[in-house]
Amino acid sequence: MAPAEVDIGKPTEEVRPARRNVMAVIAYDGTRYHGFQLQATNLPTVQGELERALAQITAAETRVAGAGRTDAGVHALGQVVSFCTASRLSTEAFRKGLNALLPEDIAVQGVADVSSMFHARFSARSREYRYTVLNQPVRSPLDRRFVFHVPRTLNLEAMAKAVRHLEGEHDFASFAGTPLPGSNTVRHVHSANCHHTGAKVYLDVIANAFLPHMMRNIMGTLLLVGFGRLNADDFRTVLLARDRRAAGPTAPAHGLCLMKVNYC
Amino acid sequence: MAPAEVDIGKPTEEVRPARRNVMAVIAYDGTRYHGFQLQATNLPTVQGELERALAQITAAETRVAGAGRTDAGVHALGQVVSFCTASRLSTEAFRKGLNALLPEDIAVQGVADVSSMFHARFSARSREYRYTVLNQPVRSPLDRRFVFHVPRTLNLEAMAKAVRHLEGEHDFASFAGTPLPGSNTVRHVHSANCHHTGAKVYLDVIANAFLPHMMRNIMGTLLLVGFGRLNADDFRTVLLARDRRAAGPTAPAHGLCLMKVNYC
Repeated sequence: MAPAEVDIGKPTEEVRPARRNVMAVIAYDGTRYHGFQLQATNLPTVQGELERALAQITAAETRVAGAGRTDAGVHALGQVVSFCTASRLSTEAFRKGLNALLPEDIAVQGVADVSSMFHARFSARSREYRYTVLNQPVRSPLDRRFVFHVPRTLNLEAMAKAVRHLEGEHDFASFAGTPLPGSNTVRHVHSANCHHTGAKVYLDVIANAFLPHMMRNIMGTLLLVGFGRLNADDFRTVLLARDRRAAGPTAPAHGLCLMKVNYC
Repeated sequence: MAPAEVDIGKPTEEVRPARRNVMAVIAYDGTRYHGFQLQATNLPTVQGELERALAQITAAETRVAGAGRTDAGVHALGQVVSFCTASRLSTEAFRKGLNALLPEDIAVQGVADVSSMFHARFSARSREYRYTVLNQPVRSPLDRRFVFHVPRTLNLEAMAKAVRHLEGEHDFASFAGTPLPGSNTVRHVHSANCHHTGAKVYLDVIANAFLPHMMRNIMGTLLLVGFGRLNADDFRTVLLARDRRAAGPTAPAHGLCLMKVNYC
């Protein structure tokens, strides 16, 4: 039996590996996830899958921060995450390694080293969301996971006119899903457009930040305009009411997608 | 107890309800089906789902004929079926009733009464298929069920040139998946185009009819052209060889979609 090694010269300073800050752009089909954010329960989340894959690649527990806390069932083409790591893997190795380990409904689109000041959520200047409605009599099996099927004819002109009222800085309490009492519900909408290509009707909104369920509540109310139950001025009245009860129902999650996060 | 009715005047001619011939255009996400056609086993098929829904609606066993026998995993936007029925339901009631009963990955796009001579398969003059390749380094979670992801750079010009050799009447034995000995492998390709929009590369072929696996074997061989392993003339040599061993591998089913069936 070999004698135990005698510790004679361990440096008194602990050697810490240099840590780096990394960001990644992520796309996912949110159908089978309970949202982006980790849950107290063991339900599958996008963050959970990312952290599991990162732990395997870096051999260290790694916490990721996401730019947008997408709800259960909401998709992303351009979610952004950031994380600190001591790993020396190249950004290319991160991308390929993560994509090899992640399930087929999540994929890393790109990875970059960023300054230690960068934080996916707090550094974000604006987010772009798209809600897609399929407006035709019959449902579409190939699009069904990514569009909300509305068979009734919509007044697209009225919808396009109504959403322009969202632009600018407003208190969006009417479209906020259960905000904490006293929390700030003012957001700045840089642009809001409702347009269509064939039977697909898109609601595109760019804002500094979004309240929980804000896009889905806007879409639910906008559909009331499409059905003729509200006009464009009524839509403005809903916004100005700053009362969730003034607005329409919450449109389903699966029509919503986080398209892009902007940092400058 | 009431006395049994005495049968005194039953007509000697059996009264047969008038039968009609109906066609329907069907879209489906083929991911979870073992192809269009009924299987001897109990595996799920599109035909099986349609016949089950039709039996419920018409209260009679109803056999459907399909224009294209799509493989397991292949999708359709414009499959056509026809069936005979004694039901007096309106075509609108057929569409709505079937869509209410069919699973979410199959939907009837339209229904019409047709002449008794019409048969979805035998009356078809041509079929249009599209194979879609996603040609970019990273995979796409939102498109993953409907595109074949090819990360390597493709020579799109050479591919576009090669497929033109398919046009016209040819013996397509090189692209036929295990034809029966002595069976006719001559088909007429009306047009064959390979083009792209962004990272999506499309192979569109219109032909009077297709051999089993024909589109997938053409695509597998065309990718060898894209990779530079064959040139456009080599592709023609493969076609002229009339030998399956001369061609490339079979591209996966999930990139393929039956777009349309033409009857005149």
